[in-house]
Amino acid sequence: MENFVFHNPTKLVFGKDTVEKIGEELRKNGIKKVLMIYGGGSIKKNGVYEKVVRSLHDNGITKVELSGIRPNPVLSKVHEAIAVAKKEQVEAILAVGGGSVVDSGKAIAAGYYYEGDIWDAFIGKYAVKKALPLYVVLTMSATGTEMNGNGVITNEETLEKLGFGSKYVYPVVSIVDPTVQYSLPRDQVVYGAIDAISHVMEHYFDVAGSALIDSIDEGIIRTIMSATEKVIEEPENYEARANLCLATTLALNGLTKMGTTGGDWSSHDLQHPLSALKPEVAHGAGLAVVFPAWMTYVRDLISEKLIKFGKNILNLGDDATAERTIDELRRWYKSVGAPITLKELGFTQEDVQKVTQIASKHAPLGKVKRLDTHDIESIYRIAYEF
Amino acid sequence: MENFVFHNPTKLVFGKDTVEKIGEELRKNGIKKVLMIYGGGSIKKNGVYEKVVRSLHDNGITKVELSGIRPNPVLSKVHEAIAVAKKEQVEAILAVGGGSVVDSGKAIAAGYYYEGDIWDAFIGKYAVKKALPLYVVLTMSATGTEMNGNGVITNEETLEKLGFGSKYVYPVVSIVDPTVQYSLPRDQVVYGAIDAISHVMEHYFDVAGSALIDSIDEGIIRTIMSATEKVIEEPENYEARANLCLATTLALNGLTKMGTTGGDWSSHDLQHPLSALKPEVAHGAGLAVVFPAWMTYVRDLISEKLIKFGKNILNLGDDATAERTIDELRRWYKSVGAPITLKELGFTQEDVQKVTQIASKHAPLGKVKRLDTHDIESIYRIAYEF
Repeated sequence: MENFVFHNPTKLVFGKDTVEKIGEELRKNGIKKVLMIYGGGSIKKNGVYEKVVRSLHDNGITKVELSGIRPNPVLSKVHEAIAVAKKEQVEAILAVGGGSVVDSGKAIAAGYYYEGDIWDAFIGKYAVKKALPLYVVLTMSATGTEMNGNGVITNEETLEKLGFGSKYVYPVVSIVDPTVQYSLPRDQVVYGAIDAISHVMEHYFDVAGSALIDSIDEGIIRTIMSATEKVIEEPENYEARANLCLATTLALNGLTKMGTTGGDWSSHDLQHPLSALKPEVAHGAGLAVVFPAWMTYVRDLISEKLIKFGKNILNLGDDATAERTIDELRRWYKSVGAPITLKELGFTQEDVQKVTQIASKHAPLGKVKRLDTHDIESIYRIAYEF
Repeated sequence: MENFVFHNPTKLVFGKDTVEKIGEELRKNGIKKVLMIYGGGSIKKNGVYEKVVRSLHDNGITKVELSGIRPNPVLSKVHEAIAVAKKEQVEAILAVGGGSVVDSGKAIAAGYYYEGDIWDAFIGKYAVKKALPLYVVLTMSATGTEMNGNGVITNEETLEKLGFGSKYVYPVVSIVDPTVQYSLPRDQVVYGAIDAISHVMEHYFDVAGSALIDSIDEGIIRTIMSATEKVIEEPENYEARANLCLATTLALNGLTKMGTTGGDWSSHDLQHPLSALKPEVAHGAGLAVVFPAWMTYVRDLISEKLIKFGKNILNLGDDATAERTIDELRRWYKSVGAPITLKELGFTQEDVQKVTQIASKHAPLGKVKRLDTHDIESIYRIAYEF
């Protein structure tokens, strides 16, 4: 087990009918004016918008709205929002939506106090020193961003999809009401679940770890898999939905990171170019394709862990081998409707070259094996077609 | 799954050679003078005292010392420390020790700003509104107090052992260095482990819960059991020690409470009178005796959960029954050297009457079954002798 520091100040308000509490949480902290950001308007269909607006009104909080944040959120929108936040002198950012909206909220919150281009925080040129307080009403569980200090944004000009992290952008309060996710399309649920599984796996397959966190990781992944199957069958099954939501939050709030070196993260680094090149590729869909391909490529380096994964998560018993574990994981991804090849995602052989080029910009990637350009291309080739 | 709020602002600094970081953590937060409290002086033998003092000195922090806090810490000592803290105008409490020292630190921190007797916070007459910041260097993992807002103190006059909780007494920073626990006596390790297991069980056997947290609970308890066995054999096995330390912290930092109604806690309520009557009875030793007795008494109400416990934690497979699970848990307690009857703890039949009387003051206890005086006495009778 590696030394670590865990410090997660986010207040998580979890459960049925909790959306209505947002106004009170803001008021208790003395906030009177927020920039409320959201996506394409699904919150107006599922009732969340109305509940939030009423709660703000009832608590005497003024809002400025900015909508239209899209999946794989882009830097230009962040710039636009920072300008509005400055002009309107808001006291906090209120992100109502899924991972894209919350991640944008983090970049906006940090950008508010930075004179330069906030993209500097993503390319390592600026260490965030201050940020507006961020409040979250989560409408889709997937990335875990509701309870951590990280965000991912795509720069449309450079085609780079990069992350930044800062202790200043942990949400002050995050409200997670599983019932507002009843109406999510099936593919979003599945890709969210795969994203969360992948977050746990990045830590599980780290070069360091512990028996304790391994056992917690295994419990989280098992729960996500069974809850996902249940939610697909019965979208309004509260228990399954709540288990899935909470598991995705715990997957990336620092718990699964304890005692590791911080995670491998090469599969995420290999996914980001996919969505950067084809923004219609959901993050979770890309991960379903690249993570098993990465496992296959580094199989001999993680074979013991793969066998443990097969036994303790996939119930393979004494039949578990590294290869069977990967096959079974892929089989499960397929069973819930996820793609498992780049071809299914619409990539051509030429595209493989392109994403290799984008991913290689930040090579070497990962820790289990430090991936160079050759390794990266090899993994994309494995992912291309089985 | 019940609705819940999780908000744990403690910064956990975990790992080898982390004791030395205490001065820096205080300095970064602008603190210049602390009341340093500790117990019977074991920290002078294992090197922790020297490391803390040097770290404070190197960071320009002045200290006032108060030692002699004993296991099952008493209210009179808390009063004494509050007087010193006020007289010396300290800016923070620095607790260096195990659960007793940290719990005393919480009462002192809260008492500093209260005009009346801080015992009022324990009997529900005062809701804490402010406290001095509390910093912790943990030297024995057991109660989980290093990462929560609760403390337990014994009032020697009334023989009551009661707890209080407040968001203001979460430690600001807790340093957990597993290596400083290498020299702990075996019985303290075992009782610490049983205390932590009991904390998880209070939530596991709650009247509400979730598949996710159950699976995490199971992983934590399994890890505590195997790590305890290893640490008994090899006290300086870092991995086992680190797993045990981290598991005890996670057992009561709010994670295992998520989605429950807050835990049953009647076994703890039944243990406290044991230590109040006989202060030499370690908290974990008392729990090893009363928890299985409680399980036996309410067996039919929790039989499904007991079977799950037997299968997923004790590896009983398809042979798991409620009765076998309780037997096996007791057998494990015995195997690591814990008492499993009140008789072994030196209690007489007359003492059973006395503890029944003390425990009944706060009846009904628990949630799985609301225990009245008759129930309480029956459980103590089961615990008396097998």
